[in-house]
Amino acid sequence: MAFKTVIGSIADHFRPKMDAVGVTHNGPLTADDAFIERSVNQPQPRENEILVQVLASSVNPVDVKMRSGYQDKGVFRIFGLDVVGRVAAVGKDVSRFAVGDRVYYAGKQHHDGADAAYQVIPAEMAAKAPENLDDVSAAAMPLTTITAYDILVHGFHLPIAKDAGKGKSVLIINGAGGVGSILIQLAKYLGLTVIATAGRADSQEWVKKMGADHVVDYHRGLVRQIADLGYPEVDYIANLQDTTGYWDLMVKTIRPYGEIASIVDTTMPVDLGELKSKSASFSWIFMLARGNFNVYLSEQGQILEDMATLFDEGILHSTVTKVYHGLTAYSIRSAFQDVAGHRAIGKVVVDFAPNIKASEGGMPLEDGSDKESTFSDGPDNIQEKDGQAEKTGKSELNDEDAPTHY
Amino acid sequence: MAFKTVIGSIADHFRPKMDAVGVTHNGPLTADDAFIERSVNQPQPRENEILVQVLASSVNPVDVKMRSGYQDKGVFRIFGLDVVGRVAAVGKDVSRFAVGDRVYYAGKQHHDGADAAYQVIPAEMAAKAPENLDDVSAAAMPLTTITAYDILVHGFHLPIAKDAGKGKSVLIINGAGGVGSILIQLAKYLGLTVIATAGRADSQEWVKKMGADHVVDYHRGLVRQIADLGYPEVDYIANLQDTTGYWDLMVKTIRPYGEIASIVDTTMPVDLGELKSKSASFSWIFMLARGNFNVYLSEQGQILEDMATLFDEGILHSTVTKVYHGLTAYSIRSAFQDVAGHRAIGKVVVDFAPNIKASEGGMPLEDGSDKESTFSDGPDNIQEKDGQAEKTGKSELNDEDAPTHY
Repeated sequence: MAFKTVIGSIADHFRPKMDAVGVTHNGPLTADDAFIERSVNQPQPRENEILVQVLASSVNPVDVKMRSGYQDKGVFRIFGLDVVGRVAAVGKDVSRFAVGDRVYYAGKQHHDGADAAYQVIPAEMAAKAPENLDDVSAAAMPLTTITAYDILVHGFHLPIAKDAGKGKSVLIINGAGGVGSILIQLAKYLGLTVIATAGRADSQEWVKKMGADHVVDYHRGLVRQIADLGYPEVDYIANLQDTTGYWDLMVKTIRPYGEIASIVDTTMPVDLGELKSKSASFSWIFMLARGNFNVYLSEQGQILEDMATLFDEGILHSTVTKVYHGLTAYSIRSAFQDVAGHRAIGKVVVDFAPNIKASEGGMPLEDGSDKESTFSDGPDNIQEKDGQAEKTGKSELNDEDAPTHY
Repeated sequence: MAFKTVIGSIADHFRPKMDAVGVTHNGPLTADDAFIERSVNQPQPRENEILVQVLASSVNPVDVKMRSGYQDKGVFRIFGLDVVGRVAAVGKDVSRFAVGDRVYYAGKQHHDGADAAYQVIPAEMAAKAPENLDDVSAAAMPLTTITAYDILVHGFHLPIAKDAGKGKSVLIINGAGGVGSILIQLAKYLGLTVIATAGRADSQEWVKKMGADHVVDYHRGLVRQIADLGYPEVDYIANLQDTTGYWDLMVKTIRPYGEIASIVDTTMPVDLGELKSKSASFSWIFMLARGNFNVYLSEQGQILEDMATLFDEGILHSTVTKVYHGLTAYSIRSAFQDVAGHRAIGKVVVDFAPNIKASEGGMPLEDGSDKESTFSDGPDNIQEKDGQAEKTGKSELNDEDAPTHY
């Protein structure tokens, strides 16, 4: 045992290292050491995996939730599920990709995350990134696009084809968030009439830009607003905000034989029976279930491949609104704060480019022993995309107005 | 006003009358006057309707539920949703049927029922009855067949085609009831592996006869029994028994991305969120929603037309197990008691033939003023079908063993 440990330590000493950002304790997101930087062992791909040099990653509400659920005190946990990167090595059974390919993917929940210079994932979960999207624009899209696809295909049983839902209507609760922003675009491609909820003026403007036909304000009575638009009942409802809080609205507003899909945990038991008289359906959409249960992994790669075509044809557009530069504890923490504040419009991305440049062509910055630091970078390196982002680099954790949306 | 009433009375006097069985108060099903017989006005078809001389009707759990929900004291309410009959007249816009056609259909919930010599329904809801099924065998099928179809098509999103579900598995909770008995047959036609629950020896024998691959006993731990069969998780679950009571079983047993369908009201709120990690779907199947909301009525006619082909090809078989003869307060009450007792296997049918024979070629027995009687017929006229029915004509309301299934 001791012998094996010594051998292990020696072997570790010669393994390539890489930079990563993660947590070792469950502190508040406002704390300076909410995230820390470390040099850790670079992973190696197994036979069906690819090693990806991460070029950019984006933050989703589920990342914030995973962080707040962290309980392994002392264990360095790396988050990050949404990736654009370049293939640095391929496992021996991988034929779909070659070294140098630019790929995009959403990874696995219980697995080392993407907030690191390199990540390993099953090749079948990735696809070549859309050629017309730059790294930052592409990194914003995998997780939300797969989720939006799942809502339409698994939740509403519509094929992803032009005008496949023509004549039907969908209510999207929280249209301005990451999933809402791409779901609106996909729903419009399917020919659906889209009614989206949004509270603030900038959110309302954004959902219209995404293509929503109608915007309703969740601060005022939604049932009445939707009926006034001429849709006392809708064919589909996508709840991206609060399943318990919007239950009554959904029961009232769904059409007989209509279909509801939700990505948001219930906070209390709901009266499912209220949907029975309408013979309605309710589907949970949780795209990470594939990775968690190790089922249908290749669906994720296939969906991203199909969607890449729609991005390249200009039918779908990236929903990135805010970019942080450099993989640092500061940039990751700031991006998490933006998303946790529940006011983020579209997607927040961390562009790893500065790290990559510094290490000359994408090799790890350092291969020494673990280092640790906080705030290695300041608020200067925030970039807003398309003028849609909010003009702030500080925490927005105290927004009491907006309901939870993860 | 008085003038109009007098005219109305005179007009009523010349309108044809018909025999019917129904209720005017909400008494116990065990009371002698639980149902009463009356002569009432015969209905007339409007432009898109057909007038049907009822040849046989069957009783479903929803009839028992509707009766126990009766609150219009003094108003004569006729139940009966499941019909085989002969077209006696057609509305002016009806081209699908001609007088004399033998049709079968499931009617509307909030509408005069079929426990009468004649009934009017929208033509689009009916189809020509399967030629190879006699009246009693056909009368057993419309409501349960449409429900089973809806479970597979709307709940599980499978097409009704040979082997369309090959390689997949379904758990049917309460396989021996009316819906279960035809759902097993349809599921087998789709190539699904069918695991059905059944408690008593005769129920277990019946579900095997219907085609179930495996039978599990709900008196013993179902999770373990199902796992022992080699199905720790199934692709689909049809709950025909008790949505609240079987919730935990369903959460444990459904496969990730699996689909649950239920026809049974929840008795308490359930924790819908428990299905989220599996990204699973839950669909209510309530075929009467079409009639209640006046939507997709023609789907019912189309489904029955398609299913008639499968009955005539010998792929599907009638699930009738018990027959009462003659439309009488006694026969209807007895059939309701059988279904309310929760021990019925397959379907209970009332054959109207004796009434029809007595009135020479299908005209109403009497055209006089309202008459009322109870128990005009005795227990002698019970017939068992295929040896599957229970050997009793008396009430079975006191079965404590079997859970509710409506």
